[in-house]
Amino acid sequence: MESNRKVGILGIGLIGGSMALGLKKSGWAKECIGIDTQRKNQQRALELGLIDRLLPMEKALKEIDILILATPVDNLVEQLPLILNQFNEKQIVIEVGSTKSPIFEALKDHPRRSQFVSTHPMAGTEFSGPDAAIEGLFTEKRCVICDKELSADWAVKELENLYQDGLSMNLIYMDSVSHDMHTAYISHISHICSFALANTVLEKEKDEKRIFELASTGFESTVRLAKSSPETWIQIFRQNQENLMDVLDEYINTLLKYKGLMLSDSYEKLKEELSKANDIGRILKK
Amino acid sequence: MESNRKVGILGIGLIGGSMALGLKKSGWAKECIGIDTQRKNQQRALELGLIDRLLPMEKALKEIDILILATPVDNLVEQLPLILNQFNEKQIVIEVGSTKSPIFEALKDHPRRSQFVSTHPMAGTEFSGPDAAIEGLFTEKRCVICDKELSADWAVKELENLYQDGLSMNLIYMDSVSHDMHTAYISHISHICSFALANTVLEKEKDEKRIFELASTGFESTVRLAKSSPETWIQIFRQNQENLMDVLDEYINTLLKYKGLMLSDSYEKLKEELSKANDIGRILKK
Repeated sequence: MESNRKVGILGIGLIGGSMALGLKKSGWAKECIGIDTQRKNQQRALELGLIDRLLPMEKALKEIDILILATPVDNLVEQLPLILNQFNEKQIVIEVGSTKSPIFEALKDHPRRSQFVSTHPMAGTEFSGPDAAIEGLFTEKRCVICDKELSADWAVKELENLYQDGLSMNLIYMDSVSHDMHTAYISHISHICSFALANTVLEKEKDEKRIFELASTGFESTVRLAKSSPETWIQIFRQNQENLMDVLDEYINTLLKYKGLMLSDSYEKLKEELSKANDIGRILKK
Repeated sequence: MESNRKVGILGIGLIGGSMALGLKKSGWAKECIGIDTQRKNQQRALELGLIDRLLPMEKALKEIDILILATPVDNLVEQLPLILNQFNEKQIVIEVGSTKSPIFEALKDHPRRSQFVSTHPMAGTEFSGPDAAIEGLFTEKRCVICDKELSADWAVKELENLYQDGLSMNLIYMDSVSHDMHTAYISHISHICSFALANTVLEKEKDEKRIFELASTGFESTVRLAKSSPETWIQIFRQNQENLMDVLDEYINTLLKYKGLMLSDSYEKLKEELSKANDIGRILKK
């Protein structure tokens, strides 16, 4: 694939950095320009070859065709309207955050709303920063495009092309409200489970050596997300608090039910619950 | 390595089958004999080449040097004393279960107690049955040996050799009571978290297609253990109920604390908790 596209990226960490790697590898982008915000991360991204150049936002906006915002979600809500103000009529901006409703609200009446496309590539690891960027992170994963009808057709088309041809992703479509509900029910609660498991084990098991010695791959897998960035996740939890409360209550109730079944020696009933849980394997097809 | 050892295995599933594969591959065992209990699993184990022959227990006991019991834990408590009754003075039996105190109690006064060694290889996957057996499952993992002083020195030495030379494992030593506490705090609670997460997501997210579409590797990792065998785990939860209750209460309290911090908009404090949770990465050294 050959292209003349110049892509600007604000926030060259795990997600932004992996996108830059993928878009250059596939040839979808001719150049990836890091937006210089004086943070040491940006310099590191240059050293690692994730981006070709660093420019301040103002200069970058004179060159780039597409701007990818890959910063924590609070930052997005503040910056997106200001950035769109500076756009010409051919530029497109996307964000790749985990919560959508606050951005939806913040941009509702913006005159350049149609040049913004809300997207959520469903991929990541528990690591963060430019050193965490991986080529192929997105390959064959899914990407959600939200509120497609609020963006211009030409902008959506270009973005579909970016995710499909540039990063080999499969697209699904949703409105912002549904997105935030479904991601709370599936992704955000998983992070809560895992963070809380780590806190619990660290509280109960005072002997660090024992944790290291007795951690099997099962424990490591369940607690993996507890290594995620607090800065990133605290903002997601806050922005999606209502949906998250809903599923957190259900989770706590499920645990209380387990506890009640154990205390009343109703292990046959608990076994039925565990058998129902097994069904997740069929749904995930693995 | 060359050996004349004949090893009998009762329960040729994930653990028993993987041990058979490892012990033959390393040459530690000359022959692995499956104990025939008329279950279809045993036939499958033969087809897969996990074992060399199938024999009924009575006949097997006339040939084997070491017997490995890899059945669910309730079964162990019932069968171990009866099996030991039939032993000659040179045979050794080990079990590889996840709970130790009930077996410790059941064998306390048995005249052949010293020919039994209590062990727990800390390795596994979420799958079960002979088809789940994997060569190398135990390599470089840890194995706990419990109550070493209650077993004969020659028997412990042989078993240390089995795990170290036969399966390339690293040994740690503990008493049964400590074992059950530490494994509840680390391994058993992880299974509870994961089973309950699956139940929660299946309850809240009625649209199966959405679960499949939105499941990232993070969700898959956290929910992985929910695919584990209910039969196996219900017995572990029952046998280790007291320790499990203790850590389950702590886990529920941690989640209630998270909930309270979110509802009172104390996100800075929640962030401190998440930062503490991050420490698990340092302890696990990855």
